[in-house]
Amino acid sequence: MPASPIRRLVPLANKAVEKGLKVYRLNIGQPDVPTPPEALEVLRHIDRKVLEYSPSEGLLSLRKKLKEYYSRFDIKVDVDDIIITTGGSEAVLFAFMACLDPGDEIIVPEPAYANYMAFAISAGARIVPVPSSIDTGFGLPPVEKFEELITPRTKGILICNPNNPTGYLYTMSEMLKIRDIVQKHNLFLFSDEVYREFCYTGAPYISAFHLPGIEENVVLIDSVSKRYNECGIRIGALITKHKELKKNVMKFCQARLSPPLLGQLVAEASIDTPKDYMLATYNEYVERRKFLIDQINQIPGCYTPIPMGAFYTVVRLPVDDADRFCRWCLSDFEYEGQTIFMAPASGFYTTPGMGKDEVRVAYVLNKEDLGKAMDVLRHALEVYPGRKTVC
Amino acid sequence: MPASPIRRLVPLANKAVEKGLKVYRLNIGQPDVPTPPEALEVLRHIDRKVLEYSPSEGLLSLRKKLKEYYSRFDIKVDVDDIIITTGGSEAVLFAFMACLDPGDEIIVPEPAYANYMAFAISAGARIVPVPSSIDTGFGLPPVEKFEELITPRTKGILICNPNNPTGYLYTMSEMLKIRDIVQKHNLFLFSDEVYREFCYTGAPYISAFHLPGIEENVVLIDSVSKRYNECGIRIGALITKHKELKKNVMKFCQARLSPPLLGQLVAEASIDTPKDYMLATYNEYVERRKFLIDQINQIPGCYTPIPMGAFYTVVRLPVDDADRFCRWCLSDFEYEGQTIFMAPASGFYTTPGMGKDEVRVAYVLNKEDLGKAMDVLRHALEVYPGRKTVC
Repeated sequence: MPASPIRRLVPLANKAVEKGLKVYRLNIGQPDVPTPPEALEVLRHIDRKVLEYSPSEGLLSLRKKLKEYYSRFDIKVDVDDIIITTGGSEAVLFAFMACLDPGDEIIVPEPAYANYMAFAISAGARIVPVPSSIDTGFGLPPVEKFEELITPRTKGILICNPNNPTGYLYTMSEMLKIRDIVQKHNLFLFSDEVYREFCYTGAPYISAFHLPGIEENVVLIDSVSKRYNECGIRIGALITKHKELKKNVMKFCQARLSPPLLGQLVAEASIDTPKDYMLATYNEYVERRKFLIDQINQIPGCYTPIPMGAFYTVVRLPVDDADRFCRWCLSDFEYEGQTIFMAPASGFYTTPGMGKDEVRVAYVLNKEDLGKAMDVLRHALEVYPGRKTVC
Repeated sequence: MPASPIRRLVPLANKAVEKGLKVYRLNIGQPDVPTPPEALEVLRHIDRKVLEYSPSEGLLSLRKKLKEYYSRFDIKVDVDDIIITTGGSEAVLFAFMACLDPGDEIIVPEPAYANYMAFAISAGARIVPVPSSIDTGFGLPPVEKFEELITPRTKGILICNPNNPTGYLYTMSEMLKIRDIVQKHNLFLFSDEVYREFCYTGAPYISAFHLPGIEENVVLIDSVSKRYNECGIRIGALITKHKELKKNVMKFCQARLSPPLLGQLVAEASIDTPKDYMLATYNEYVERRKFLIDQINQIPGCYTPIPMGAFYTVVRLPVDDADRFCRWCLSDFEYEGQTIFMAPASGFYTTPGMGKDEVRVAYVLNKEDLGKAMDVLRHALEVYPGRKTVC
């Protein structure tokens, strides 16, 4: 499995910190927003004597709570359709392991979350990318592009909506097009919707489960990590109405015995988090997003489309090679004792050469830090030796 | 992936409970002993605001603590050799994924923990069994038997010591034989040593890391689940001095982002558990073991060798087919409103037909319940239609 471009930079970032630099970490989705206090209270009042295995499919009480949570979004699933996983990551891994044989293919609009590739490799399967472009705001590529890529080995399409890394939110019209292909070729639709709480434009969030006629084809990937700022508890879910698939996934679940018990207790309490908390978190991201996008698009030669959801955006930089630029920022540059760690977008594409002048920026830092980070970026671009001339 | 014989019985056990029967669960390794109170206190005093991702390799503080823990057993490893995993299960999975290509083979003395098979299948690899027998107390098969099975695809040998399901503890002479084969053929030695705290005969526990000359070949699998009775927190470890392997394992660790944070906090506190707790737990198992083995070997036609470690034993029953007998106990039998759930040993063998008249019994229940369970077993065998005549 190849190491991703972000991970290759981690040692450089650590070195920069050791040198005494303040490193603004725009590279990861680790929000600085607090975990709901109600969720932490559950731990403080734990009255169990034994921290025993939970059922392989997760605690029934959590699955019931999630069913209720999904119904708020008009996602109608049964408790039995919900399998608790160790983070959204395990949901993706088990979905791939259970649906794909070695050599099978999944079509994925790119740029896409880098770890999908890692999990596909673990299943011996192949990610077949459909490139989307920053120039069209990362909208869904035309249906014909998907059709061209379908082979007898194609088993599914994977989307992330709202999207990591682009912040794109698929429209109803786009989702219906995906539905049509899925239906026509009887594919699985793997839909990662962990950022559903973060949609900023008033456009509706369309779940794969909202699409009529493919209810049995949908494999929904979920996680509580981002919406309640509790990435460390490792609780996600795989939701499917496909009976055979459910059985197969459960075999993997049973082999790993059970998802983390303590995380499940925290996740369950989090679902009852008062609306005020959710709204405050949402508003915080709304502000950061506006602030960040304004800042970026004012830096000469930089461009980012306006992300509609999640808390990432892909930025085009006036540089020869974004990998090299990100590396240079960490190893050869500083501005007033500060530097920045951004994720080279090449790691989100499997098509060679794509995203060469792009980076992903996460707006998980507070506005003050984001402002300072953008100052650093502006200054870095002014002196970076591989800067491209801006027309 | 085939469903294991134990799992196929779970719905029957649930039905028995619904019918109002008391079911003694001798089938699983879920101890009823309390989790160390000091470990639970850590949760009650948690002062974090954000439950954030931990590093992919686990918290440094936990890895330091584990290094110190291993040194108590004369296992000399560096902090960098220790990678925290989501339970021992993930350690096995990642070890296999990182070491084995599809088609590769691992030699495993059987009976063996059923989930090894599941993880090997996930890696596309093949478990090659070396049968050990209840008649020789499940000792290590002769070295020649291993040699016969080695092919160009053999990548490793896997042992579990003390053993689940047999309770066998390998002697120094046996471990040195394993060492010789590993060294001669330059194999990996996967050594699952999660039961090291539970050795009952005064014979020494020999870790794979005690074997001179193969330090780079050893992949130690560990878990805090059993020794501190906290199976639900899902914290294990993979320990290796093999630099290239470490790098490969880390790629899988990074793809799943991080092991559970809360479990790591609990595990770290557990390592400081006072000796009194460990001794009380140990003594409890010593008593249960003696009580159970005495009881079993007094039932006409039943035989079990004396387990030297862990908290399981494999029992030969005077029945036509242990799968059928276990099923019958749950679905067609009761004694004074009670029945028993045992694990058919066929699930621990990959050689067809092996273990047909054997079951695994876990002594994780208190003595009173174990006594009642053995009463049930005695009565069940008296009336089971498929009983074999005892000579």
